[in-house]
Amino acid sequence: MDIGIVGLGLIGGSLGRDWRALGHRVWGVSRQAATVEQAVAMGAIDGGSTDLASFHGRPVAVVVICTPLDQVVPTGRALFPHLETTTVVTDVGSVKAPIVAALEPAWRRFVGGHPMAGTADQGIQAAQRGLFAGRPYVLTPTATTDPDTLACLTTLLRPLGCHLHPCDPAAHDQAVAWISHLPVLVSAALVGASCTGPSPAVLALAQALASSGFQDTSRVGGGNPDLGLLMARENRPAVAAALDHYRRQIDYLATLIQTEDWAALHTYLRQTQAGRPAFVAPDPPPAAPPQPL
Amino acid sequence: MDIGIVGLGLIGGSLGRDWRALGHRVWGVSRQAATVEQAVAMGAIDGGSTDLASFHGRPVAVVVICTPLDQVVPTGRALFPHLETTTVVTDVGSVKAPIVAALEPAWRRFVGGHPMAGTADQGIQAAQRGLFAGRPYVLTPTATTDPDTLACLTTLLRPLGCHLHPCDPAAHDQAVAWISHLPVLVSAALVGASCTGPSPAVLALAQALASSGFQDTSRVGGGNPDLGLLMARENRPAVAAALDHYRRQIDYLATLIQTEDWAALHTYLRQTQAGRPAFVAPDPPPAAPPQPL
Repeated sequence: MDIGIVGLGLIGGSLGRDWRALGHRVWGVSRQAATVEQAVAMGAIDGGSTDLASFHGRPVAVVVICTPLDQVVPTGRALFPHLETTTVVTDVGSVKAPIVAALEPAWRRFVGGHPMAGTADQGIQAAQRGLFAGRPYVLTPTATTDPDTLACLTTLLRPLGCHLHPCDPAAHDQAVAWISHLPVLVSAALVGASCTGPSPAVLALAQALASSGFQDTSRVGGGNPDLGLLMARENRPAVAAALDHYRRQIDYLATLIQTEDWAALHTYLRQTQAGRPAFVAPDPPPAAPPQPL
Repeated sequence: MDIGIVGLGLIGGSLGRDWRALGHRVWGVSRQAATVEQAVAMGAIDGGSTDLASFHGRPVAVVVICTPLDQVVPTGRALFPHLETTTVVTDVGSVKAPIVAALEPAWRRFVGGHPMAGTADQGIQAAQRGLFAGRPYVLTPTATTDPDTLACLTTLLRPLGCHLHPCDPAAHDQAVAWISHLPVLVSAALVGASCTGPSPAVLALAQALASSGFQDTSRVGGGNPDLGLLMARENRPAVAAALDHYRRQIDYLATLIQTEDWAALHTYLRQTQAGRPAFVAPDPPPAAPPQPL
């Protein structure tokens, strides 16, 4: 199959590497010519361009928009005029409802997507084979989605070894608000509090003594601020609702400690111990890496 | 040197293994005869008993109280009548001010201690050599501490390869409130919110999609509820103050998202990205493991 990828970073490059290994032909578009060259050199694409118009007359069956989250909608709108009307289009943005609301009416064969895979590194140089194996891959068809469009994407994605989760765009956005976006804010607030709360002497001691508990709990809050901002901005209603509910948990814990209600605190901590494994049960063994067709 | 260890769990057993490897003789006391037998069998102690009176007439220079946090003070009070007045006593409890306030007036040669080391496992079976190498070890001398007592402990501890941090008991308790105890509450509240906030359908999706960000941020909040309770109860004033300051960070973030003040949110996230490394800079390379004297 001929596939197009717009945006050649970690996700776009990794999709290209897997699909080429499976025997597909991949055309890539990036804003930077150097990125296109690097993607060709590392085998992520067969060829590419810096111009979306390069799709004109090219027989791609599917195009995947892999730009940063806030560029997905403008990229889609700029892309559509250059495609055959039969082309299936999807994206990999981490917030789905606004993208689907904007692009589905503009392109009959659009379905939103979100592969839940990543590494600490970014950019085409971090692209790797097997990135999606064993990981969730969300697709967000709606009532108006053509079944053939969804089937085409399913056929293309399943050989990557990912676990496909079709769901409603709004349900996706609410779910990731709890498990991806809220953790960033919770964790950032821990770093913010620990930097500004202690006296200078206690701060120096805290920095010297901090160990794995602080390290793990603060990791995502000390990450890329651009990504943290984007997810809060693009998924604002769901993130605001999750943060509000979280704040009530903190208020409750503060009250328990204030009133020395140790029995209730113990109950709460027993419930969180019991509740966590459903979110972090060991992944099923990764599927076999993609094999040539 | 002859050393006594009271409480043969992960910490007590690991101290015993290192000290015996360094050529010291170790006498252990545990409530369970089976634990004493297991500690002898694994080489953590030379011999032991279930009775604190077994220290009577035994020439131990130092005794380390390694019981659970809430047992340190009663254990110390029960222990002192069986010791020569020259014996140095320390403990490994993770909250220092209440212990020091209770035991220092009762035993002239008492100095509080807190090795910042651990594993996910507990109990004598988890005891290991080199547990303290490269890790912080806090000692909390006060104005009334005899310099010889502190020197004796320093001499005994330094060969474990740990980094000794002498500090005020209250400063220790404040520091660990920020970097050990607050993370547990922050993380528990994330699990609590994520279990109770979403609708059943979104909860199931969130559980299926949760990945490393949620896993790391929720780890210490899903840990042993007995430990979480103890640290909040025993370090209540410092934990309450830290949680109150944390709550103000959450309020601030909620306001920024509510008012869509994206510039201020970006600034906050840039500050937390910049602030975190001072807490989690890579450890210095671990010291060489203890060698026989």
